[in-house]
Amino acid sequence: MSEPSADAVTAGIVVIGDEILSGRTRDINVQQIAEFLAPLGINVSEVRIVSDVQAAIVEAVRALSERCTYVFTTGGIGPTHDDITADAIAAAFNRSIDVRADARAILERWYEKSGTELTDARLRMARIPEGAVLIDNPVTGAPGFQVENVFVMAGVPKITRGMLEDVAPRLTRGRVTHSVTVRLENAREGDLAADLRQLQEAHPEVSIGSYPWFEDLGNGELKRGVALVARSVDEVALSTVRVELENLTEAVSRQ
Amino acid sequence: MSEPSADAVTAGIVVIGDEILSGRTRDINVQQIAEFLAPLGINVSEVRIVSDVQAAIVEAVRALSERCTYVFTTGGIGPTHDDITADAIAAAFNRSIDVRADARAILERWYEKSGTELTDARLRMARIPEGAVLIDNPVTGAPGFQVENVFVMAGVPKITRGMLEDVAPRLTRGRVTHSVTVRLENAREGDLAADLRQLQEAHPEVSIGSYPWFEDLGNGELKRGVALVARSVDEVALSTVRVELENLTEAVSRQ
Repeated sequence: MSEPSADAVTAGIVVIGDEILSGRTRDINVQQIAEFLAPLGINVSEVRIVSDVQAAIVEAVRALSERCTYVFTTGGIGPTHDDITADAIAAAFNRSIDVRADARAILERWYEKSGTELTDARLRMARIPEGAVLIDNPVTGAPGFQVENVFVMAGVPKITRGMLEDVAPRLTRGRVTHSVTVRLENAREGDLAADLRQLQEAHPEVSIGSYPWFEDLGNGELKRGVALVARSVDEVALSTVRVELENLTEAVSRQ
Repeated sequence: MSEPSADAVTAGIVVIGDEILSGRTRDINVQQIAEFLAPLGINVSEVRIVSDVQAAIVEAVRALSERCTYVFTTGGIGPTHDDITADAIAAAFNRSIDVRADARAILERWYEKSGTELTDARLRMARIPEGAVLIDNPVTGAPGFQVENVFVMAGVPKITRGMLEDVAPRLTRGRVTHSVTVRLENAREGDLAADLRQLQEAHPEVSIGSYPWFEDLGNGELKRGVALVARSVDEVALSTVRVELENLTEAVSRQ
């Protein structure tokens, strides 16, 4: 329904972390990154959540790096033994990796301010693949980095957000996808489906999605409705579709 | 860190939906499915979130079907034009697809009770790939289905949950992965990293993860801490590691 056009700017996300796969932690970075990129005209086209295993990270990053304009990874760049993302990215792009002077200097300045010792473990966070461009970390100092079209960021959402701010000026912007949502209560998708299909066929430049929702009223009854979401880079076409969606939902409500 | 053993029972998840990729809706099914499967001894090893495009669904389902014991898909099995999952699954396994009598009978009974017309659009939800086994939907009637090791479920979390209950008895159970969490306040990963690495090396049968957390105190100050999570199918080894983690964190707290 939403095959991106050839000139679209797309993003892949690789979430690295056993703690997400296990269900212990619910990921919020996918939504955060998608919402950050949307106003820049960059749409997320695929997400992979992989475990803390080098081969899994390498495979996902290589696959998305080839097919997306940009890739954003989150997680696995801290000082502990389970932080293996930097080495995995170096392996994915056949680059060497070592402690780099510029990253080390950032850590030294950061820790000096807080009177924290720069241990060997912390120094691991200055291990940066050859040729990478650093990403500023305004929260805890230790930088992320960019290799080719891949941006390697921390997994703590507050730090991820800070790093996105630093990365934004480096990104080529695309046409912004606008969206309108029309919500219906007491409606069922089945009553709208035939008209929606016609509307979609008449407006291939707009992507129309239909999402049922249910709300437990507590008394054993289920309140139900549908959210109709139209998305397009073409604002004129989108406003035409909005009017048609509103007409359609009014007709259904009167039934 | 957590390469599954050869006899492990693993699950892949394919979340199908532009509404998740766009950030409009935050996925909660990954966590729900992971939490449902964990007590059955089935661990999620990879997740992919793909758009409502047949080629994307086919690729993800085929890839995870080959490498995981089971695959669970969510989304795209409703009555509207953007629900293309059933056809995509049929294509992924080279099966024919058509309205099937058993699925149609379920819809007829369900809609008769609520006085709802079985329109052509609703009948689309009885399109089931050849040879698939149906999955019960206790919330809205329209069934999911299983093809080989792939379970095709609805995306509305309440329905997903109901379908998981129906699927559970079909699943081979594995050894349950147990976990313990030791939380430290006012601690930094860098102070624990060297000891944690030693502990991980001494206990390869336990997977030890270190997750920093930050809490904004509102006054410009950041409260910080670390959650140490150890996971293993070996409860004896896990309890040894738990004691060592507690000793380690007490030592750090005294510093």
